[in-house]
Amino acid sequence: MRLRGRKGIRESLERQPDLIVLDPKARRGEWARHFGNSNPIHVELGMGKGRFISELSLRNPDINYIGVDMFDELLRRGAEKARLAHGGLEEGEGIPNLRLALFNIEYIEEMFTPGELERIYLNFSDPWPKKRHARRRLTHANFLRKYKDILNGRGEIHFKTDSRNLFEFSLNSFSDMGLRMRDISLHLHQDGLREDMVQTEYELKFFEQGMPIYRCEVLIGKEALEEHISSLDLA
Amino acid sequence: MRLRGRKGIRESLERQPDLIVLDPKARRGEWARHFGNSNPIHVELGMGKGRFISELSLRNPDINYIGVDMFDELLRRGAEKARLAHGGLEEGEGIPNLRLALFNIEYIEEMFTPGELERIYLNFSDPWPKKRHARRRLTHANFLRKYKDILNGRGEIHFKTDSRNLFEFSLNSFSDMGLRMRDISLHLHQDGLREDMVQTEYELKFFEQGMPIYRCEVLIGKEALEEHISSLDLA
Repeated sequence: MRLRGRKGIRESLERQPDLIVLDPKARRGEWARHFGNSNPIHVELGMGKGRFISELSLRNPDINYIGVDMFDELLRRGAEKARLAHGGLEEGEGIPNLRLALFNIEYIEEMFTPGELERIYLNFSDPWPKKRHARRRLTHANFLRKYKDILNGRGEIHFKTDSRNLFEFSLNSFSDMGLRMRDISLHLHQDGLREDMVQTEYELKFFEQGMPIYRCEVLIGKEALEEHISSLDLA
Repeated sequence: MRLRGRKGIRESLERQPDLIVLDPKARRGEWARHFGNSNPIHVELGMGKGRFISELSLRNPDINYIGVDMFDELLRRGAEKARLAHGGLEEGEGIPNLRLALFNIEYIEEMFTPGELERIYLNFSDPWPKKRHARRRLTHANFLRKYKDILNGRGEIHFKTDSRNLFEFSLNSFSDMGLRMRDISLHLHQDGLREDMVQTEYELKFFEQGMPIYRCEVLIGKEALEEHISSLDLA
């Protein structure tokens, strides 16, 4: 694959303002207005090549999706993939419920106001294996505090990874923050590919290699938690 | 090894009333009096061959230990192992802080009064892999309710297993009961054998084979929980 120059990529992104958001801070608190409706907003932090968010936006037209990543080239490819998934749209033909935003997740609170989101997806985030880099892991307490703030009463975090060490770290991080978990899985596709869920590119590769995928959901919002508890049959 | 007949084993157990408790229900609410002091009581549910509880009783003379299992032969071997670990004691020479009790864990609440215990160890419990046997798993909600009852304000459950499926089930079971976990580990001896902890016979075998051991602690008592929370450095 021939890689376009940096400049070419940026120009391509600029040609797609319907799909690509290059200055997402400017949309803070304005996302509902921007989407033109009050549907729930689900965000993938670290969308990578974009398969996951693109598939979800196709399956669930009544949910607004935002994929976030910090590299121009990932956004360009993500946009390409999204248009393909949505029936081969041309540049300029928008996808009403999907946006791809160029942003550094470290400052995620600058992109959303408190309670603006309903769900955060963390898929195969960088495990940052060295202990001195623990604060960079997207499930570190510092990040969890930010997520709690920008999620609403129905707020949840859906997290999956192939990294045992990151999953272990994350389970402890959720526990230490006193967050309630649900559907913890230590080998998600143990009984075959979970077709009811959308997979990322990494995930499909790992599944083919028979490697375990770890996953859990974290209940942040008060309503989400109450609904979960009342749904449990502990008899 | 020549196995003694059933009758021979029972007679051997009966000769060791200082160490073996054949009718533990009769001690319900009387364990402190029986040990002759008010030290905390830690119980291993399913002591197997007894290495773990025997080692612990040696390391921590100020804690009273009770190993529970339902097979005569396991108790006989456990007693043998305990006497060896304590410097080769003869039958009749007691170990002040250790008892091995013959009992069916299913009725554990008949062995202890509410708040009589400080800690429960669950080591390599039977995973009962079939879904229809889920209620037999020692971390099923029905058991957790019993444990909550018999544990005191400093009460904790320490759980380890080699079974990924049992660990997954247990994490969900703890979560669903709203119990707080601590020190969740998905590969306990990843960086070498944890000499600060006592291993069971199974565990040493699995460690040698490089298989992961899963472990976590569950905070049950109010004081245990408060102390844990105040110890956390979430900055």
